[in-house]
Amino acid sequence: MSRDPRHDLLFEPVTFGPKTTRNRFWATSHSSGYPDRPGTHASFRAMKAEGGWGVVNTGFCSIHPESDEYPWTSSRLWDEGDVINLGHLTEEIHKHGGLAGVQLWYNGMHSPRYESRESARGPSGLPSNVFPERNVYAAWASEDDIKALINMYVLAAYRAEEAGFDLVEVSGGDTTVPLQFLETRYNKRTDRYGGSFENRARFYVELMTALKKAVGDRLAVTTRFEVDTINGDHRIKHFEEGLGFMELMNKEGIVDLWSIKIGDYEEWGEDAGSSRFRKPNWAAPFVAGARDLVDVPVVSNGRFTSPDDMVTAIKAGQCDLIGAARPSIADPFIPNKIAEGRVDEIRECIGCNMCVSRMQQQALMYCTQNPTTGEEYRRGWHPEETGTSPSPSAVLVVGAGPAGMEAALTLARRGHEVHLRDSAEALGGHWRAVARYPRCSEYGRLITYREVMLEKHKNVSVQLGVPAMSAQEVLDYGAEKVILATGSHWSPVGLGPETHEPLENVHADLPNVLTPEQVSAGKPIPEGKVVVLDGDGHFTGFAMAEIAADLGRETTIVTNTHDVFEYSKFTMEMPNNKRAMYEKGITFLRNHWATGYAGNVLRLFYLYRDTAGLYETAPGQWGRRFGDDVVELECDALILTTSRVPDDSLYWELIERKGEWAEAEIDGVYRIGDCVQPRHAMDAIFEGHRVGMELESPDPQRPLPFIRERQIWGAPTIPQLGDQRPVVEGELLV
Amino acid sequence: MSRDPRHDLLFEPVTFGPKTTRNRFWATSHSSGYPDRPGTHASFRAMKAEGGWGVVNTGFCSIHPESDEYPWTSSRLWDEGDVINLGHLTEEIHKHGGLAGVQLWYNGMHSPRYESRESARGPSGLPSNVFPERNVYAAWASEDDIKALINMYVLAAYRAEEAGFDLVEVSGGDTTVPLQFLETRYNKRTDRYGGSFENRARFYVELMTALKKAVGDRLAVTTRFEVDTINGDHRIKHFEEGLGFMELMNKEGIVDLWSIKIGDYEEWGEDAGSSRFRKPNWAAPFVAGARDLVDVPVVSNGRFTSPDDMVTAIKAGQCDLIGAARPSIADPFIPNKIAEGRVDEIRECIGCNMCVSRMQQQALMYCTQNPTTGEEYRRGWHPEETGTSPSPSAVLVVGAGPAGMEAALTLARRGHEVHLRDSAEALGGHWRAVARYPRCSEYGRLITYREVMLEKHKNVSVQLGVPAMSAQEVLDYGAEKVILATGSHWSPVGLGPETHEPLENVHADLPNVLTPEQVSAGKPIPEGKVVVLDGDGHFTGFAMAEIAADLGRETTIVTNTHDVFEYSKFTMEMPNNKRAMYEKGITFLRNHWATGYAGNVLRLFYLYRDTAGLYETAPGQWGRRFGDDVVELECDALILTTSRVPDDSLYWELIERKGEWAEAEIDGVYRIGDCVQPRHAMDAIFEGHRVGMELESPDPQRPLPFIRERQIWGAPTIPQLGDQRPVVEGELLV
Repeated sequence: MSRDPRHDLLFEPVTFGPKTTRNRFWATSHSSGYPDRPGTHASFRAMKAEGGWGVVNTGFCSIHPESDEYPWTSSRLWDEGDVINLGHLTEEIHKHGGLAGVQLWYNGMHSPRYESRESARGPSGLPSNVFPERNVYAAWASEDDIKALINMYVLAAYRAEEAGFDLVEVSGGDTTVPLQFLETRYNKRTDRYGGSFENRARFYVELMTALKKAVGDRLAVTTRFEVDTINGDHRIKHFEEGLGFMELMNKEGIVDLWSIKIGDYEEWGEDAGSSRFRKPNWAAPFVAGARDLVDVPVVSNGRFTSPDDMVTAIKAGQCDLIGAARPSIADPFIPNKIAEGRVDEIRECIGCNMCVSRMQQQALMYCTQNPTTGEEYRRGWHPEETGTSPSPSAVLVVGAGPAGMEAALTLARRGHEVHLRDSAEALGGHWRAVARYPRCSEYGRLITYREVMLEKHKNVSVQLGVPAMSAQEVLDYGAEKVILATGSHWSPVGLGPETHEPLENVHADLPNVLTPEQVSAGKPIPEGKVVVLDGDGHFTGFAMAEIAADLGRETTIVTNTHDVFEYSKFTMEMPNNKRAMYEKGITFLRNHWATGYAGNVLRLFYLYRDTAGLYETAPGQWGRRFGDDVVELECDALILTTSRVPDDSLYWELIERKGEWAEAEIDGVYRIGDCVQPRHAMDAIFEGHRVGMELESPDPQRPLPFIRERQIWGAPTIPQLGDQRPVVEGELLV
Repeated sequence: MSRDPRHDLLFEPVTFGPKTTRNRFWATSHSSGYPDRPGTHASFRAMKAEGGWGVVNTGFCSIHPESDEYPWTSSRLWDEGDVINLGHLTEEIHKHGGLAGVQLWYNGMHSPRYESRESARGPSGLPSNVFPERNVYAAWASEDDIKALINMYVLAAYRAEEAGFDLVEVSGGDTTVPLQFLETRYNKRTDRYGGSFENRARFYVELMTALKKAVGDRLAVTTRFEVDTINGDHRIKHFEEGLGFMELMNKEGIVDLWSIKIGDYEEWGEDAGSSRFRKPNWAAPFVAGARDLVDVPVVSNGRFTSPDDMVTAIKAGQCDLIGAARPSIADPFIPNKIAEGRVDEIRECIGCNMCVSRMQQQALMYCTQNPTTGEEYRRGWHPEETGTSPSPSAVLVVGAGPAGMEAALTLARRGHEVHLRDSAEALGGHWRAVARYPRCSEYGRLITYREVMLEKHKNVSVQLGVPAMSAQEVLDYGAEKVILATGSHWSPVGLGPETHEPLENVHADLPNVLTPEQVSAGKPIPEGKVVVLDGDGHFTGFAMAEIAADLGRETTIVTNTHDVFEYSKFTMEMPNNKRAMYEKGITFLRNHWATGYAGNVLRLFYLYRDTAGLYETAPGQWGRRFGDDVVELECDALILTTSRVPDDSLYWELIERKGEWAEAEIDGVYRIGDCVQPRHAMDAIFEGHRVGMELESPDPQRPLPFIRERQIWGAPTIPQLGDQRPVVEGELLV
């Protein structure tokens, strides 16, 4: 197919500073957790260039050990070792015709500094609100310190140039130090760097000026700027100082391009807005007018996955380039797919923020939609090229949920003959219900993408609405290989991680006890007071509570965890979860669990009702003095999101009958996803993809080894002991 | 000096299996965060061997990618790369005459598996209570799976042997898989691996048998066993199944040595009991009787730092060897110091669990008492050998708090002429008050150790009770170098990380507003309702609340953070903090902050009172709809642990007068610790040590680079793509 001419606009080159990018696709800087794994990092970023992104940025890149983000993993431009690693990254990006950008980041006040153990500097000596529990502070910077800070950026820019980058982007987002100077919240100074708007802007202006002077004739010097922190009066607001600052900087002519965003570091989930709270291009009204104020290109983000939306945003004057972080993870080939008129093949970001959640756990980033994310180097995977199986076979996949769909698709792409069967009338398994939960509609893209792609493969037979298969039917089916993806169900008896025991007098057969599947299927939620008992910690319990509250039920969430829907701390949805609950009057009780339910009373206990001390509680018997306090909660209906139970009986029946496989000409029976053990959809899809990629391995049930990138004793280290610290104190280096 | 003969017992060799250790000192397995940094890891562990520990164990060591603890950093025995790294570690331990042990760890059900993305197996298909919010489950293991599990241990033991280890310790603590089989909580099986005690013990027995067979004639095969989980009826209790299990195993003759402990993985802070809740040897009554049941040596831990306590425990029949994790971190030279009669020089663990807290943040472990922990390789530091300064000078240290004391001591050890001055009558700075907080008495060891050591150095003049120094006095003092360690104070106006603004009508000059310093100094806490406003998140707010509650005040803690004293989640004190508050009737309110205090009403707001959605709130103005709900709390007295403010005026005065330094013959003025920026005492002591070690560097104010151990592109990686998975399925490999 050929490109829709309406999308031609997206493929116009754009010039900024000394650089010209081939099109209007800008892969925005985002963290990944990969930087200490240089192969993983480079291959991941370079895939975006291969997929057509004109500019590919790294994640946040610390310019100096004073802004050490560890235990979070940032890129760094501290020494020659970083130049080597990032040099590999830029080389890989350049191979595919992309420009490589690096985000220069100094966030000392909000940097834990757990590896470097350095002190940091900032406009004022204040504690961090991003890590309020960690005793993270910055020191008030003198004018000499301010020069040193600027020199850190300059040295980092020189290293960036050495590493082959085409542009340096100063982070003036995520409450980094330029913003700390700009915001009255952080800037309590009374000298020429504090007080008036111009004074508060001075640091940022001097910084950009120095960088332009240092590298500006060779590299583009850009900035990512949070034009509105959306956090009230003592922060940046677009209609007050946000736009004003852009105007001021524009007069100086020291910015080659603006990448603008909203939100701050404490709530960077407003920049990486989840689809549960933010619809595509939610930042539009906040960035409106910005482009008209400046003479250079402007980038704007908005979880754009539709080329029509992109064109609209550009035509409306919102921006010149389309920025994307998460969409470029979910589908690094968006530009090429648009260019080639394959818009229907775009693997659209669902905005679930699982990527964010792994980063927030100091882990490696993965993606729900794109199981090859982070696996490009270490497993040799490619989002668009699966290769062809050396030994195609007839494969039966039982269950068309996330894992089954992905397995079937991957197998089909690799040339197997695939039969995908499910007793439901449509694809998606339990995820069909999930996509109908309040706020979760974009989650449905997980299904629709696979539906479209499965239709394109003639070697897949999708059989829906068929009777659930018995072991005998599987044996008789005629498949050489069988993959079970039969899923899981919510425990109907309240089995959960707290006690691992069913609750007394609780069963979803009762009219006032409900599982999410029952709620989705329309089982009525009795009137009155509803309790959602949550042992899951993610979004299901929230959805159930919201459904109940929207029906007018007085709704309370009870959870064993220290916080309500604790996983949402990692997806950055916690603050808005709490705001939404507050708006709807949904209350919650933490660190409690249930023992039983009788009449309309749910009996709970506080997890910490026992003594802290240890005593001789009976002769020869030592331990806590156990408390027996009970909390009784009025409860007219109980919804259970306590834990899930694998639907694995078919698997075990088939294993039991292993002796019959040979006769049935079955080589192997494997299982994937929730029927092995319940998991996030991201991990189920990963396993579906993996079994598809590795069906020819000696034991497809278990993954092949992946390349581990970690220091091996004897390999080079940088720096060496005795190396000197680069000098940043003293006069400006440019 | 020579050894006290009463301590001779500690230096007797002990034989277990095919190995004999030189003495009774057993450095217990503990995590560190270092394993991906093989030089850091090896030098850290080997320091214990150098300090005299007979046996030095690694931290938890994953035997297989199915038990991938990532994002926590464990050791691993997955492949040849691990053999190389751990081979370096054992070599370093052996150089110093120690035996090297490795803890074989499979905890699949409780392993996040965020790097390997594998499925895990366990006795039952249940969700983890350790990570209830993360959707971590295990799959029910068939008998074939059980064989595979045992084979994983066997392969790991072979690799351990290849790496040069002398012993393999099976983790049957921290709720690892042997314990999951043993505990009725996790074992819901109805086959021969579930049900009766003997059935539940079968896996553990078969595992130890296999290991003995595989490596038992060459390596000692030991186990770490949690004899009492102290968590109630459906877990292991010493007086029921705990001791019974030891008896059963002993009959089989398959364990060469027992290392016994209490607690489980969810609350491993009961094993690593903090001094705020557990006094030395708190496990004694739980392990009592164990040694008599078995025919092999027994190790018992108890945060032992006193040789007399060690001897008592051995003589009382509690154990044969003294296990220690934290004490061996705080002072790797405990055995040698006892051996040489230098007991007063032992740097005693204070039980603050800062070590634990860093590990729990997926970070590198450091130690409050021992600033060289983790720095042995990367900065070349040694806890006992500082080296001598090539250019000794006369140094004035102003302020004898943690940072100042450590700086003075380090400088003295390096041959400088040191003057340590403080206006207080005793050493310790603000830490003197801290050590008098409820529960915190052991924290005082931070001061007493340095007091003793300072007394031993003739080149230190400690001047206490002197008037606070002015800039002029510093200039006139006659020092060549000046180090300011003037500390910080609690904000008297309620400045905190939430708003970064003082609270309305709040000042510690008022009788009903108090800072911790004032409470310590005896300012009376008014009767009635007391609110502790906490923006600090660590132990100070707790101490203030407990002081108030113990005086009979009705006490409430208000904090901006998602949980109360959130840092205690990392120190593993959160559960007991909550229990202790529950016992004392101390309540708490989270996600709230104060705006002002008038009459006896404290005005608070909920952090999430604004809308989750974004709207056009006024023409052209977008944002949240801001809430104005106020929570009014009756409050007769307000204690402020909101944030700390550096005492840095002396520093800035001296910087201002830099032009006068030359005339005063002052080379440099540096500042360290809280007067730069408030921090944990651990980090203040680190900085004191660092400035002492680096006083001759070009800019002692800033750290020299350290060796970074991370993958550099081009260095070897293991495995390679195409490598096969080691086969564990099928028959037992021994």
